Amino acid sequence: EHYSVAVIAGDGIGPEVMAEGLKALQAVERVHNWIRFDIRCLDWNCGYYARHGRMMPDNGLEILRDFDAILLGAIGAPDVPDHISVWELILPIRRRFHQYVNLRPIKLLKGLESPLRHKGQAELDFVVVRENTEGEYSNMGGRLHAGTPYELAIQNNVFTRFGVERVIRYAFSLAQSLGRKRVTAATKSNGINHSMPFWDEVFRDVSRSHPEIRTDLFHIDALAAYFVSRPEIFDVVVASNLFGDILTDLGAAVVGGLGLAPSGNINPEREYPSMFEPIHGSAPDIAGKGIANPIATIWSVSMMMDHLGHREMGQLLLDGIEEVLVEGVVRTPDIGGRATTSEMGDAIVNSIMRK
Amino acid sequence: EHYSVAVIAGDGIGPEVMAEGLKALQAVERVHNWIRFDIRCLDWNCGYYARHGRMMPDNGLEILRDFDAILLGAIGAPDVPDHISVWELILPIRRRFHQYVNLRPIKLLKGLESPLRHKGQAELDFVVVRENTEGEYSNMGGRLHAGTPYELAIQNNVFTRFGVERVIRYAFSLAQSLGRKRVTAATKSNGINHSMPFWDEVFRDVSRSHPEIRTDLFHIDALAAYFVSRPEIFDVVVASNLFGDILTDLGAAVVGGLGLAPSGNINPEREYPSMFEPIHGSAPDIAGKGIANPIATIWSVSMMMDHLGHREMGQLLLDGIEEVLVEGVVRTPDIGGRATTSEMGDAIVNSIMRK
Ligand SMILES: CC(C)[C@H](C(=O)O)[C@@H](O)C(=O)O
Ligand SMILES: CC(C)[C@H](C(=O)O)[C@@H](O)C(=O)O
Repeated sequence: EHYSVAVIAGDGIGPEVMAEGLKALQAVERVHNWIRFDIRCLDWNCGYYARHGRMMPDNGLEILRDFDAILLGAIGAPDVPDHISVWELILPIRRRFHQYVNLRPIKLLKGLESPLRHKGQAELDFVVVRENTEGEYSNMGGRLHAGTPYELAIQNNVFTRFGVERVIRYAFSLAQSLGRKRVTAATKSNGINHSMPFWDEVFRDVSRSHPEIRTDLFHIDALAAYFVSRPEIFDVVVASNLFGDILTDLGAAVVGGLGLAPSGNINPEREYPSMFEPIHGSAPDIAGKGIANPIATIWSVSMMMDHLGHREMGQLLLDGIEEVLVEGVVRTPDIGGRATTSEMGDAIVNSIMRK
Repeated sequence: EHYSVAVIAGDGIGPEVMAEGLKALQAVERVHNWIRFDIRCLDWNCGYYARHGRMMPDNGLEILRDFDAILLGAIGAPDVPDHISVWELILPIRRRFHQYVNLRPIKLLKGLESPLRHKGQAELDFVVVRENTEGEYSNMGGRLHAGTPYELAIQNNVFTRFGVERVIRYAFSLAQSLGRKRVTAATKSNGINHSMPFWDEVFRDVSRSHPEIRTDLFHIDALAAYFVSRPEIFDVVVASNLFGDILTDLGAAVVGGLGLAPSGNINPEREYPSMFEPIHGSAPDIAGKGIANPIATIWSVSMMMDHLGHREMGQLLLDGIEEVLVEGVVRTPDIGGRATTSEMGDAIVNSIMRK
């Protein structure tokens, strides 16, 4: 079986962690020798921008369209404004390919300790489903009276029934397919009085078709606090674009840090390629030092396997990661060790090959 | 010296915790017998709404206007929609009285353990300055195509130079007056591309007048994660209405919970009364049981003292709270004990009277 995978290693630590992600992918090929990944590396990043004045070719999205999946390392450099690197590469991919689900597991891996004193593997194991195409990241708005004391900026949050309903439906079917009992929605309808009450309404509508699932609507302030004080109450959390963004970085922190946190930008209908990326950024401060943790990327590769329908391979990768963490010998500095990025990747590959 | 204080005990646990706040206030009067607080209790809450069809009298704001300060317990009941209880009482007070600073200390009190394994008093001691009058809580927006598959809701976030500048200025002068070195602003200008870049610009403008202060602009996702992983880097954090709301509930969680978290809705110019309230809600689930923690309210009374210019009394109250926590005998259930709300309040009053 052949899959074509576009790889955008990106900037900063992106290429460093992606190298390990690709090693892990090759390890899978060696274990299951009937599967092949045809990799195409695309050099679309801030360096490309410096040379061409844009983040990707004009027909970049068309090029990507034909792949079975996309792997992204990290995008962003200090000398390129975010409104370019983010708005001309990551966000167009998420939107154009209707990757309306940003799937982010919050799971404390075996062998790791949570920074939360009283929480362990049993308490820290849930999934956040983040809306990924609309909401607070709308690109709509502007300024008036610039340069005067009366200057103001307006940003429109745009929530459509189409957009909200599809992501909430996904959250419910995910809970079902994972055999989990509870779907929690993040809201703020007490303070934000147009968009969030609408979000709540759609959530209640959709939940009516799932009487077997327990539902909660928590305000984002309380919900963020619960990620620290009561993470065990969550199975599947569904949140708007912004709320999901905040919750998942926070979730990453409570399970050991951004170096461990994977994500999938999923087009559930599989009409378009989905994109898998660590949720960390390009981390210019540690780029080039070879100390970035590749686990988030390798775990993202594992999520890609799941999405392509090969759950046993996804599990193989995750088992490989956990085995190395349980052994506890090879660890990058962010999780208390002295290993380099590639030592960490090699250890995981070895553990995969032993299986 | 006389001060007039309007007390809105509110709903649920509001009256329970407020009773202890008032006891603490009387204790201060007994220790410093030249000071007097003339208390006027206002029964504006969801019960008032049930009787009168509104949360406060038509001239409610006029009535409040003449007080030196306002104490609020908690507002909200399951049978009254938030858009009434919040939008017809709390938010109008915050706005009408230009309480544009919502001051929220994030400080681990002596005697308490943080849920964060590796963080103690030294790491958990900073202040969040939350914008309190505009931004994401704008009341502007609406819906189109209601009841059809094409339905959508738009919410306008409105950021004015006037509104952003005044709160950021306050954050810098607060850092100065506290002798702290660092002001951190919460942003999300990489994803939210009109309002947040504007916020960043104003932050940079204001910071230029304070070369002695170190500044950082962190995206809200990373910032929330740092509240867990690196809280020691913060001195003063300044955030928009929504971001400040989220960060302070999260901050409360990392220093032991909402039962401990106070706030001041401050009009720095003192043209209007400021309002002090615990950041927790009315908690209908535990209302009437007498087990709510009154510390957040008593600490809010302490902040009122500070604001009225009596820092030594504010300190007296805070010392009283900390002494009881260090003794560790009397504690409400949320912090691991079996004491009732009034036992906790009494213990704090006794400790104040011993000083
Ligand atoms: C009740 C609600 C609107 C309020 C807010 O978000 O401001 C509360 O959460 C708070 O923090 O004071
Ligand atoms: C780069 C940024 C716009 C992005 C986001 O907020 O979506 C990132 O934080 C993420 O979570 O993937």
